[in-house]
Amino acid sequence: MAKSAKRVLLLNGPNLNLLGEREPEVYGTATLLDHVASATQVATELGMTVDSVQSNSSSEIVNAIQSARKTHDAIVINPGAFTHYAWSIHDALAAFSGPVVEVHISNPSTREAWRHESVIAPVASGTIAGFGGLSYSLAMQAVARLLADK
Amino acid sequence: MAKSAKRVLLLNGPNLNLLGEREPEVYGTATLLDHVASATQVATELGMTVDSVQSNSSSEIVNAIQSARKTHDAIVINPGAFTHYAWSIHDALAAFSGPVVEVHISNPSTREAWRHESVIAPVASGTIAGFGGLSYSLAMQAVARLLADK
Amino acid sequence: MAKSAKRVLLLNGPNLNLLGEREPEVYGTATLLDHVASATQVATELGMTVDSVQSNSSSEIVNAIQSARKTHDAIVINPGAFTHYAWSIHDALAAFSGPVVEVHISNPSTREAWRHESVIAPVASGTIAGFGGLSYSLAMQAVARLLADK
Amino acid sequence: MAKSAKRVLLLNGPNLNLLGEREPEVYGTATLLDHVASATQVATELGMTVDSVQSNSSSEIVNAIQSARKTHDAIVINPGAFTHYAWSIHDALAAFSGPVVEVHISNPSTREAWRHESVIAPVASGTIAGFGGLSYSLAMQAVARLLADK
Amino acid sequence: MAKSAKRVLLLNGPNLNLLGEREPEVYGTATLLDHVASATQVATELGMTVDSVQSNSSSEIVNAIQSARKTHDAIVINPGAFTHYAWSIHDALAAFSGPVVEVHISNPSTREAWRHESVIAPVASGTIAGFGGLSYSLAMQAVARLLADK
Amino acid sequence: MAKSAKRVLLLNGPNLNLLGEREPEVYGTATLLDHVASATQVATELGMTVDSVQSNSSSEIVNAIQSARKTHDAIVINPGAFTHYAWSIHDALAAFSGPVVEVHISNPSTREAWRHESVIAPVASGTIAGFGGLSYSLAMQAVARLLADK
Amino acid sequence: MAKSAKRVLLLNGPNLNLLGEREPEVYGTATLLDHVASATQVATELGMTVDSVQSNSSSEIVNAIQSARKTHDAIVINPGAFTHYAWSIHDALAAFSGPVVEVHISNPSTREAWRHESVIAPVASGTIAGFGGLSYSLAMQAVARLLADK
Amino acid sequence: MAKSAKRVLLLNGPNLNLLGEREPEVYGTATLLDHVASATQVATELGMTVDSVQSNSSSEIVNAIQSARKTHDAIVINPGAFTHYAWSIHDALAAFSGPVVEVHISNPSTREAWRHESVIAPVASGTIAGFGGLSYSLAMQAVARLLADK
Amino acid sequence: MAKSAKRVLLLNGPNLNLLGEREPEVYGTATLLDHVASATQVATELGMTVDSVQSNSSSEIVNAIQSARKTHDAIVINPGAFTHYAWSIHDALAAFSGPVVEVHISNPSTREAWRHESVIAPVASGTIAGFGGLSYSLAMQAVARLLADK
Amino acid sequence: MAKSAKRVLLLNGPNLNLLGEREPEVYGTATLLDHVASATQVATELGMTVDSVQSNSSSEIVNAIQSARKTHDAIVINPGAFTHYAWSIHDALAAFSGPVVEVHISNPSTREAWRHESVIAPVASGTIAGFGGLSYSLAMQAVARLLADK
Amino acid sequence: MAKSAKRVLLLNGPNLNLLGEREPEVYGTATLLDHVASATQVATELGMTVDSVQSNSSSEIVNAIQSARKTHDAIVINPGAFTHYAWSIHDALAAFSGPVVEVHISNPSTREAWRHESVIAPVASGTIAGFGGLSYSLAMQAVARLLADK
Amino acid sequence: MAKSAKRVLLLNGPNLNLLGEREPEVYGTATLLDHVASATQVATELGMTVDSVQSNSSSEIVNAIQSARKTHDAIVINPGAFTHYAWSIHDALAAFSGPVVEVHISNPSTREAWRHESVIAPVASGTIAGFGGLSYSLAMQAVARLLADK
Repeated sequence: MAKSAKRVLLLNGPNLNLLGEREPEVYGTATLLDHVASATQVATELGMTVDSVQSNSSSEIVNAIQSARKTHDAIVINPGAFTHYAWSIHDALAAFSGPVVEVHISNPSTREAWRHESVIAPVASGTIAGFGGLSYSLAMQAVARLLADK
Repeated sequence: MAKSAKRVLLLNGPNLNLLGEREPEVYGTATLLDHVASATQVATELGMTVDSVQSNSSSEIVNAIQSARKTHDAIVINPGAFTHYAWSIHDALAAFSGPVVEVHISNPSTREAWRHESVIAPVASGTIAGFGGLSYSLAMQAVARLLADK
Repeated sequence: MAKSAKRVLLLNGPNLNLLGEREPEVYGTATLLDHVASATQVATELGMTVDSVQSNSSSEIVNAIQSARKTHDAIVINPGAFTHYAWSIHDALAAFSGPVVEVHISNPSTREAWRHESVIAPVASGTIAGFGGLSYSLAMQAVARLLADK
Repeated sequence: MAKSAKRVLLLNGPNLNLLGEREPEVYGTATLLDHVASATQVATELGMTVDSVQSNSSSEIVNAIQSARKTHDAIVINPGAFTHYAWSIHDALAAFSGPVVEVHISNPSTREAWRHESVIAPVASGTIAGFGGLSYSLAMQAVARLLADK
Repeated sequence: MAKSAKRVLLLNGPNLNLLGEREPEVYGTATLLDHVASATQVATELGMTVDSVQSNSSSEIVNAIQSARKTHDAIVINPGAFTHYAWSIHDALAAFSGPVVEVHISNPSTREAWRHESVIAPVASGTIAGFGGLSYSLAMQAVARLLADK
Repeated sequence: MAKSAKRVLLLNGPNLNLLGEREPEVYGTATLLDHVASATQVATELGMTVDSVQSNSSSEIVNAIQSARKTHDAIVINPGAFTHYAWSIHDALAAFSGPVVEVHISNPSTREAWRHESVIAPVASGTIAGFGGLSYSLAMQAVARLLADK
Repeated sequence: MAKSAKRVLLLNGPNLNLLGEREPEVYGTATLLDHVASATQVATELGMTVDSVQSNSSSEIVNAIQSARKTHDAIVINPGAFTHYAWSIHDALAAFSGPVVEVHISNPSTREAWRHESVIAPVASGTIAGFGGLSYSLAMQAVARLLADK
Repeated sequence: MAKSAKRVLLLNGPNLNLLGEREPEVYGTATLLDHVASATQVATELGMTVDSVQSNSSSEIVNAIQSARKTHDAIVINPGAFTHYAWSIHDALAAFSGPVVEVHISNPSTREAWRHESVIAPVASGTIAGFGGLSYSLAMQAVARLLADK
Repeated sequence: MAKSAKRVLLLNGPNLNLLGEREPEVYGTATLLDHVASATQVATELGMTVDSVQSNSSSEIVNAIQSARKTHDAIVINPGAFTHYAWSIHDALAAFSGPVVEVHISNPSTREAWRHESVIAPVASGTIAGFGGLSYSLAMQAVARLLADK
Repeated sequence: MAKSAKRVLLLNGPNLNLLGEREPEVYGTATLLDHVASATQVATELGMTVDSVQSNSSSEIVNAIQSARKTHDAIVINPGAFTHYAWSIHDALAAFSGPVVEVHISNPSTREAWRHESVIAPVASGTIAGFGGLSYSLAMQAVARLLADK
Repeated sequence: MAKSAKRVLLLNGPNLNLLGEREPEVYGTATLLDHVASATQVATELGMTVDSVQSNSSSEIVNAIQSARKTHDAIVINPGAFTHYAWSIHDALAAFSGPVVEVHISNPSTREAWRHESVIAPVASGTIAGFGGLSYSLAMQAVARLLADK
Repeated sequence: MAKSAKRVLLLNGPNLNLLGEREPEVYGTATLLDHVASATQVATELGMTVDSVQSNSSSEIVNAIQSARKTHDAIVINPGAFTHYAWSIHDALAAFSGPVVEVHISNPSTREAWRHESVIAPVASGTIAGFGGLSYSLAMQAVARLLADK
């Protein structure tokens, strides 16, 4: 009997719905839908399904992470501005037992100083930053491997 | 004629609904419901009623505090991760005229450095930290005395 | 044919709905409605319309700013306690192309240390602080001029 | 056969013998004897005996803690100014195996900056601060529960 | 009998006489005379007279403030580089009993780090920053209202 | 005629030759040769060739980067302990015009404080950290995409 | 009837009994007895009596200050090394209602960095530092004037 | 033949001419003239003459110090706000070979944080702070002794 | 027809008129006139004329820089103690379009910590420090080359 | 005639009397008596006598150091928790003319951050840390050599 | 059959080959060869052999440490200037399983601030500092005991 | 008989061999060879010979400095990225008795923050920064004068 597909929750934080419109010299012209579509295609090829949530609210993201404890095998999260202060997301991820991959489209280390510190990294399995939309696809490949190694 | 019972609002911040599941070596195995039940029993014995709210959203907590200005005599709050950055809760509590008791299950001073600073303490009547679920019961006893002294 | 009126979005952050009640020695006794009414009157005289939103939720404010990108010409924002940590509002304002005026009723520089730093100022056209409710009216006059100069 | 009563050592640091005289707007008008009497009454009701020591000398407090390793089941300590630099008391408490409760009459977090840091907290089971003399009574209730849970 | 006009002292600090020549991408091409003229026109319409002083010397500015204690009702000051270290101006303004409005043409918060701190703000009634020459006119409107409210 | 294969220089800093022996609870039991072999296989499948250099000397790494300016299309670098202070490698990479991917086996953000800062990140196209040996394979996939996008 | 003489308590902290022997290039060759004698003579001429205590123990100094609340009109204190960390002395002096003058033989500002901060100054009426043994005599003159002004 | 009288230069920095008017709760109601008169009387009794200069300009104070190298035996200086940043006065005093006494009317250590650091203290023979106008008289007594000891 | 000589303004800040007298172990025994004479001779040989100004007043130096915008081709400045805080000079130099060379007789990096930071360096073409009076001559040679390269 | 034996004072600070009981995973199971005995044996073999003092009081340690100026040739001190703040011991040791060796059983650099700074080291001839009880024996060997070299 | 001698690797970092020539007031006049000879003699008496390496290159030292994992039982290292930043040596030592003793000829705590921090101490068994060349001999005695205790 | 020519060692640190290729907007288009040639020509005219070394290795630079103690009269060094952390070079230069001139092509003060601190400056006779390749020629002129003054 066939093994059921692994489920990945793809979370995007505040203002990422504006991708392609806001500061294209930093983030490029592709939209969030484009990135989600590419990442989903990569995930599908790797035998995984993807559910995607974007929210400007940290509590909605915390709620989504809590729900995922029952329904998903892994989380890929681009926390956007929440990266730097949303300790509530940190705590929610700490209670999630599957792999967590933190992604960033640009490299926070090369931008403003306040973007250098991540409160998410200490509870992430790993971090992928700076590759544009490609960061999402690489994250899916990482998730597939992390799930296989468990 | 009997004096009407004092009403206490018991607030719990983000991820505290996971108590008993998340990091039991730090927080123990009792659930939030257990703690609320114990605290309510203590409060009842002291002639007080308790309304309990848990939320992962700082704005819902701010709304609850604002509403309580008309309906409750005291607030007991375990701010969870909001302890460290939610200045909006600080401002809402500053506008509440009754006693405010800050509680923590574990002792933040003995955990990660970012958990040492509280933005809630400056607007709390007092703080009780580190006694596990017992912190809630001690808070109710403190509230009873603070209301009696007013 | 008449030029259509410019539209201004007036945003107020957490606990500002308590104005007139909370810490009157700092904020005065006028309510938020009073300030909005005065500012709207000034704006009307300058040929602008005003939509006013107050929220205790940073995500609602982010949502409002994102919507305003299609519907409004300028934003006046009193971020309240969000001034000091809500990077998500910072990012949303960065994606708004019209003028943004930051206002404060009291002068944050003369209050507690944590109120000295603004994460909103770097994405504001200008800041007006310390004039009580008058700050709002001055902001409307500033907006009118900034829109005229574009 | 009756279980013997638990013994609690109640330690008070420098200048606490002046309570009721010094800065009453911060510490209230009750004397240390008043607080010790109230706390002892609470302890007695909970089946515990209390020995009380006040000293302006950190070495006397260290000596008392060392002796208590053989004779007492728990320690309640209001370290006064020693809170902030007496690492020798920290080390002595670390060698005491029973529960240790740190109490403060006022809330150090709302006073001068140098009073925000506690070198005692890392070796305390829990902390109770800001409830005036009531802090002592709450501490006795906490001790009773901590001893029962052992 | 007509009420006499209020007198405003408009102070400009070092190098502001170069406005229009120095770093026009930051400060624009209008000269200080242009700004003073616009501000004076606004003030006149509001029933106030304006005396304008520009100096590269902090002691001349201190002297002017001291003299104004007898002769003027309000001060509008653009301290230029003195904003960041001229405590002698801070002390002189502290001894002036009328309203003091601090203005900046550009927004110091968006420039070099050393321009973020103002030693003038703590003794100003309010601050207006970032609106170009318009800052001066807004300051006059603020002064008129502050004098009316006294 | 066939397009020639892209050449990738894979650099490993000090002590990485001890992988599999040193602190296996942090770095795992696979050796550097294992990681290089896996990464090379991934690269080969993506039509790239890999040259691998390990050195305990920062000057040898600088020399290798300088030579690669003529001979290689991309660099993948695990700087090891050099991550945190080797500004000479920073400068050498700044003079390399192709993509540069920084990799780490463990997640520096979850280890000692001095491992949180990277002097390499500001000159890297992107960073991949925390995935064990998998970090190398993901880096090769990233390089392939970055070269394709040029 | 003659007014009774004012009583001054002259306190000297740790190692000041070594004056004249220890680091004479910093402290000079006069002994503590010499300084006390000179200061007493000045005090006598001003109609005051002096009691002198030297101790290497902060608790003895705290005890002396507490006793002096009943018996002395003013305190002159050279805290020696206690200047920089003995918060218990700070608290004891805060409970003394008469004038307190802090003296230093050398000027702490011109010595090691850790000698620049005084925890005594915030509770002293004034400070005299750097005049060698003369500091004591000046302190007595200051005390006489401060007592006369009360 | 009689020894000629020693000459003392008494320097007062910015805004000290407002003494008695500005912030009397901090500085008292006596004027600068009152303080100079008292100090001169003390100096005269000690066989010294006093020349007094008040200036809001640091360059005038530097010029006065430079001139005094030829004409005066000692300097008493209340630098006012210059205490905290006027390194040019520091350098001028370093080139004066006679005694230099720094005086303050209030105790800077008990006021705002920026008033705690003195750039004058490292080049002063000693400091007298916090005794109100009496600080000046004590300074003259100190100068007399320092000159006698040379 | 002969090209007219380039004009250099040589500025010297506070207390530099005391060179040769003040702290000769740091600054040597040559006077400022000696240094100006040597530098002028070097400049003359390089076909430039020199105007020299020394002032203890930052406003006079700002005025001189502003005037030089019309009359001089380059500025050589030894800011003395102004190096570390005179932002008004920084701003004036920023408005000067010719080369600016900062000189120091001693090497500030090897002296007190507060002499390590220069607010002038960011607006200087280059800095020459530590060569004694020779610094001035080297500065003239640098100016000649910078003017030739324009 | 035989040269008299050198006398060494061996000082142990607070809580070191608990060695062997407190935190054996850090300090081992040997008692202080064991360490003193071993060190004394080593000292005896090297022709020295040892007097040993343990105290929880910094003033007793200061007194012992002061007395030792007349009676002992060298001091070996394990300051325990006093290492980090007891400036009075620092000053007392500065007045002792013989060799001073600071010893620690564990290596403070590998423990909590507050144990990294030593106020004793600047007045010690040398430091030996981390060798368990062996640190004492090595210290005696060091003292013997330092005394021989004098 | 005789037990084979233990082998010790004695490492000396950059510029230590200049001992005896460079800054003799800090390091004394003995050469490195003198120190190695004395230490070797002590080691021989204790039944150990010594191999000595001096290098100005951190990579050579890392290579030596890596090789020693197969050939030596203990390491004594004077890291010289590498003490303060050579994290690659830190990592190499972390992979060495035998005892590691850090030695310094002078006491870094009494020299420039940048010499106070050691990146080697956290991976050393113990540290011996400040005893001149004697530090090396004491280190050999420490090694002998540490090897005996294993 | 003719005095023999002075010998200067010209040292260039890591990546300076890329001058002319790397970041020409910062460093210009001239190569290192161009700068060495110009500097050598200036030196020759001043009667000095130049030996030039470029290395990416700090140990090679330390070795070169050590050798130069016997063979060269002065050192000119552009430490490149080593400026900011190579304490081993600092120590080697401290042991060189002739003049040392630190040069930089660009002005580190106007670039990234980490380029503001120099560990070389404290052991340099003087520093020349910001004049492009001209910095080298000015350094040679400085050396000639420093050698003449010895």
